Amino acid sequence: MQRIINNADHVVEDMLEGFIAAHEDIVSRTQNPRVLKYNQAPVSGKVGIVTGGGSGHKPAFIGYLGKNMIDAVAVGEIFSSPTAKAFLDAIREADSGHGVACLYGNYSGDNMNVKMARMLAEEEGIVVRTVVANDDVASAPKSEREKRRGVAGEILMWKTAGAKAALGGTLDEIVQVTQRTIDNTRSIGIGLTPCTIPAVGKPNFSIVPGYMELGIGHHGEPGIKVTELMTAKEMAEVCTEKILDDILIEEESEVVVLVSGLGSTPVMELYIFFNEVRRSLDMHKIHIHRSYVGNYFTSLDMMGVTLTILKLDKEITELIDLETNAVSFKQL
Amino acid sequence: MQRIINNADHVVEDMLEGFIAAHEDIVSRTQNPRVLKYNQAPVSGKVGIVTGGGSGHKPAFIGYLGKNMIDAVAVGEIFSSPTAKAFLDAIREADSGHGVACLYGNYSGDNMNVKMARMLAEEEGIVVRTVVANDDVASAPKSEREKRRGVAGEILMWKTAGAKAALGGTLDEIVQVTQRTIDNTRSIGIGLTPCTIPAVGKPNFSIVPGYMELGIGHHGEPGIKVTELMTAKEMAEVCTEKILDDILIEEESEVVVLVSGLGSTPVMELYIFFNEVRRSLDMHKIHIHRSYVGNYFTSLDMMGVTLTILKLDKEITELIDLETNAVSFKQL
Repeated sequence: MQRIINNADHVVEDMLEGFIAAHEDIVSRTQNPRVLKYNQAPVSGKVGIVTGGGSGHKPAFIGYLGKNMIDAVAVGEIFSSPTAKAFLDAIREADSGHGVACLYGNYSGDNMNVKMARMLAEEEGIVVRTVVANDDVASAPKSEREKRRGVAGEILMWKTAGAKAALGGTLDEIVQVTQRTIDNTRSIGIGLTPCTIPAVGKPNFSIVPGYMELGIGHHGEPGIKVTELMTAKEMAEVCTEKILDDILIEEESEVVVLVSGLGSTPVMELYIFFNEVRRSLDMHKIHIHRSYVGNYFTSLDMMGVTLTILKLDKEITELIDLETNAVSFKQL
Repeated sequence: MQRIINNADHVVEDMLEGFIAAHEDIVSRTQNPRVLKYNQAPVSGKVGIVTGGGSGHKPAFIGYLGKNMIDAVAVGEIFSSPTAKAFLDAIREADSGHGVACLYGNYSGDNMNVKMARMLAEEEGIVVRTVVANDDVASAPKSEREKRRGVAGEILMWKTAGAKAALGGTLDEIVQVTQRTIDNTRSIGIGLTPCTIPAVGKPNFSIVPGYMELGIGHHGEPGIKVTELMTAKEMAEVCTEKILDDILIEEESEVVVLVSGLGSTPVMELYIFFNEVRRSLDMHKIHIHRSYVGNYFTSLDMMGVTLTILKLDKEITELIDLETNAVSFKQL
C-alpha cells in the first residue's frame, strides 16, 4: 500500500490537524475534536448551516466551511457516519438562535445519527430542519428517488443554502431553496480503479484493468454495469445521457457542471472529460453557466470521475454566483 | 492503462480545449493554439509576465494565468518544452510596451527555446528579461545550483513577479524580486509510484511497492536515493532537513510552505504530510506565514508529494499576500 500516512488507524486525526493548521484563517477546531467550524460561526442573526459525513472524501466535507457557505461540520471515521453527538455539537456551534439547516447525504448511518442529533438539539430549544441529498442517479431507479445516495451534488446544495442564509433567508426559505437545488441536481460516477481504506490495507472490491464501472458509488458501492474502458468522449456521453434521461432539462436551459476526480485522477484528465461533457451538452443546446473541474469530492485513492449537473433557475443562479472564501471553493 | 482520455496523441489539445471552456472568465485562447493568455492581457502600463513549459503538470502552468499573476503561457507537449515560436507568441501577447519578464524552469529545451524567443522578440523591439527557477535541491549539489531543475517553487516566483508587476514595478524591479524569491525557495519531492506518458503507454521508470524515491524529479528524473517506504512523519522530516541543510533559515523566520500532490495523491494524505512538515518547522522555531496544500504542480499520474519552502522578507511577504483570481491559486 503506497500511502503517505503515519498510522492507518490515525489518518483522520492527522488529516484534521493538518487541515486546521493549513486553514486557520478560515476554520477552527471546537471542543469536540470531530467537529470543525467556520471561524466566524455562529454568525449573529443568520441561520446556521451544518453538514457532516464520513472521512475519505476530502476536500468534502470540511473544505466547504467558510463565509457564505457552511458553519460547522461533523466528521466521521473513514467511510463511516459521524456520531449523533458530533452532529449535535455541530448544530450547537452553528446556531445563533435562528435555527439550523442540517444538509447531508442519504446514507443509513447519517440518517439515523442526524435524526437523533436533531431530537436532542430541539430539546435544547434549537430549531433544526434537514435536507437529504439523493443526487446519484445510479443508486436506485427514478421511481425510488428516496433510496438514492447523495454524492458530489451535495456541494451545490451547500452552496445555495449557505448563500441564502448569508443573504438573510429564514430557515423555511433556506430549506425550500436547498431542497429545490438537490431536486434539480443529478450526479453519476465512473470508477477505473478501486480504493483502499488505509486500516483495511486492500481494496474492498476490484476493477479489472481494461474495464470500468459505470455508476459506482462514493464508497465503491456497485454501479449499473461494468464495461470495457471507454474513451473520455464515450464516458462523458453515457454520463450526460443517464442524467438527461432522469431529469428534464429543456433546450436553452442554463446549468452548473461539476466534474470531480475521485482521488487519484490526474487533473489533466478531468479537463479532457469536462471538454466532452461540454460538447454533449452543446448537442442538447444546454448552456453551462458555471463549471467546476477538480478534486471536489473524492473517494480515497480511487481513479475515476463524477459528473454533476444542476439545472438553474433565477434564484439558484444568484445563490450559486455569490462569492465565498470556503477553503475548496473560493469564488470571487 | 486506466486513463480518461480519447487519443493518447491528442491529450494536450483536448485538455486545453476543456480548460479554456471551463475558465473562459479568466483565460483566452490566442492565434497560436499553444499559447493561452489572461483575458485582460496585455494590461496597459504593466510589465508582462510570461511562463511556459511541458504539459502533464496541470494545473501548472496555465492554472496560474490571471489578475496579478501570469499574462501568457507557452504550452508544450507532455514533458517537452514549448517551441521557441510559442514562447515568442506568449511574449507578444503579454507585452504592453513596458517589457516582459519570462520566468521558467531550468530544463535544456526551455533554456534553448526561451533564448531564441527572446532574441526574436528583441528584434521586434520588445525588451525581455528572464529568471530561471532552480529550486529542486535534489537535482545537483549546492555548489552547482545553476544545474538544478525548477519545480513547484516556480509557482511562488510567478506569484511575486505577477504581484510586483501589478503594483507598477519596472522590469528591473520585477526581475530583482523574482530572482530573490527563487533564491529563497527550495523544493524536494518523493515518488511512491512512477507515471505514464499516455502516448508511451507504460511507465518510463519503476518504483517497487514498499519503496519510495527521495528527490525524484517532476518527470521521474532519478532522485537521491530509493528507500523503504517511510511514514508521513519520516518523509516530512527528511524533506524538511534536506531543505534546511541547503538554505539558512534562522529561528523566528517566516516562511511559505507549499505541499503539492504529484497527480494521484489523495488530498487527505497531503494534509497528513503537511501536518508533519509543520511539526518539523515548529521544532526549528520557523513560522509558517501562509501555506498551500493541494495539487499545484503535478507529474501526470505519479503518486507522491513535493515540499517547497520560501523564506520570506518584507517585500516578498507583501507580494505573496496580494489577491489573485488565477484559476488554481484564487486568493482573497
